[in-house]
Amino acid sequence: MSNKKNSRRNFLQLGAFGAAALITSPSWMKATAGETIAKKADQNSIKLGIAGYSFVNFNLDQSLAMMKRMDVKYLCIKDFHLPFNSTAEEIAAFHKKLADSNVTGYAVGPIYMKTKEEIDKAFDYCKRVGVNLMIGIPEIKDLPYVAQKAKENNVKFGIHNHGPEDKIYPNATVIWNHIKDLDKNLGMCFDMGHNVRDGQDSIKDLVRYKDRIFDIHLKNVTAADAKGSTCELGRGIIDIPAFTRALLKIKYPGCCSIEFEKDMKDPLAGIAESVGYFRGVLSAV
Amino acid sequence: MSNKKNSRRNFLQLGAFGAAALITSPSWMKATAGETIAKKADQNSIKLGIAGYSFVNFNLDQSLAMMKRMDVKYLCIKDFHLPFNSTAEEIAAFHKKLADSNVTGYAVGPIYMKTKEEIDKAFDYCKRVGVNLMIGIPEIKDLPYVAQKAKENNVKFGIHNHGPEDKIYPNATVIWNHIKDLDKNLGMCFDMGHNVRDGQDSIKDLVRYKDRIFDIHLKNVTAADAKGSTCELGRGIIDIPAFTRALLKIKYPGCCSIEFEKDMKDPLAGIAESVGYFRGVLSAV
Repeated sequence: MSNKKNSRRNFLQLGAFGAAALITSPSWMKATAGETIAKKADQNSIKLGIAGYSFVNFNLDQSLAMMKRMDVKYLCIKDFHLPFNSTAEEIAAFHKKLADSNVTGYAVGPIYMKTKEEIDKAFDYCKRVGVNLMIGIPEIKDLPYVAQKAKENNVKFGIHNHGPEDKIYPNATVIWNHIKDLDKNLGMCFDMGHNVRDGQDSIKDLVRYKDRIFDIHLKNVTAADAKGSTCELGRGIIDIPAFTRALLKIKYPGCCSIEFEKDMKDPLAGIAESVGYFRGVLSAV
Repeated sequence: MSNKKNSRRNFLQLGAFGAAALITSPSWMKATAGETIAKKADQNSIKLGIAGYSFVNFNLDQSLAMMKRMDVKYLCIKDFHLPFNSTAEEIAAFHKKLADSNVTGYAVGPIYMKTKEEIDKAFDYCKRVGVNLMIGIPEIKDLPYVAQKAKENNVKFGIHNHGPEDKIYPNATVIWNHIKDLDKNLGMCFDMGHNVRDGQDSIKDLVRYKDRIFDIHLKNVTAADAKGSTCELGRGIIDIPAFTRALLKIKYPGCCSIEFEKDMKDPLAGIAESVGYFRGVLSAV
């Protein structure tokens, strides 16, 4: 934030609100206002989203109302909000509804796919939805096929790790070992909470696998083993400020999408606290 | 956090959860776990509370349920939750109910007091409630009397500033000028949001008046003038990370109580986001 080029870029990123603040602030406030603007840019320097699964018990309107309230702008689309067999008209209406809430559906998934046919269907869905990122859980034997399809369709494909209960992809290192020699469009949706539940170090893994991390499920967990469960972002065992510093260090270009698997029938308070926590960390690191 | 004395103190502050995390973490996690614990201590290094007015539309049970959910432990008591004429039994039951939610009622107020009789009644209430901090709005002519009562009762009395609409105490400097030559038990409940709405610099004022700031109403605002209104802590024009750094620098010993004057009929999401934001900033500054 200290050089002029950065300041200017950050100022431009702010849009109308920041500009208005700068123009209307009394002169004695300029230094402070300038600082505030720099901080606001920090706060927005990483895209914050919500993983659709957080809203498994809510329809799209309810989910978007919560996102609007929290001013979160990116949603990873789950099929319970946009079914696989949606028509072009339904997909257009879906995107329109998101845009009306100032939300972008930036990816689809996670999608389980057990056969080549299901892989084909998933890529077809992704293409029809019009996003270039899909989160999925394919069989290991099908990974070369998935890599080929990802390359052909110019789609990034992120495999999701699901912790110690997941016999195929428990952690990021397992995924890495499967994909490292395959096409670079094949990567991971790094669930940094489940990775810790599997006894891994998510801060080190973020840096290690950065080139193939296309999406992140952001959460905290209560313990570094199978007994651990999701909790509010500031209340678990993962050092989120350290993780955030690593995100900034690697210049992570993707979304950090909060996946809140607690109080799933009444998640707004916990998601809002988590959203606030991440913004606070981003503003202050 | 770098010297051993601090580490030990912070460790001790953590209680059961932190100790368990330290003991059960696998060896490879120690560095990270240690960092996490230091950060957790940071996060708790300033007491976070809620100003009772945030819950003006909710009874005590509803308010405590929200606080418990956000894991916020300090409440500034408003008379709509504990009426001035409460009996000793009612006061005991009130404190018991708070304790059951792991909440401490640390102060009473803000209380308006127009006459010496109302001042007497307020001090009597404060004493019966059993707290040694009262937030109030007395008449300027009565300040020497309030100072005398505060000294006699060994109660800190914080005058609340209420922004440009407040003809008596619009900002912290006005209060300071009234109290600086009176007894040191007379100070302020620094509403750093209303202070900015009155065109003041709340970060400078925090440092300037630190010896007489007994309580803080923590909030952010949308503009630095009368048109400004409360918004979620991370979304306004006040640089909360800078304010927080100043709190740490002056070793502010009191509570920072969120006063959320937005969505007051459905405030949980906004308060939770604000709570998360402050914790995030504290964890990362």
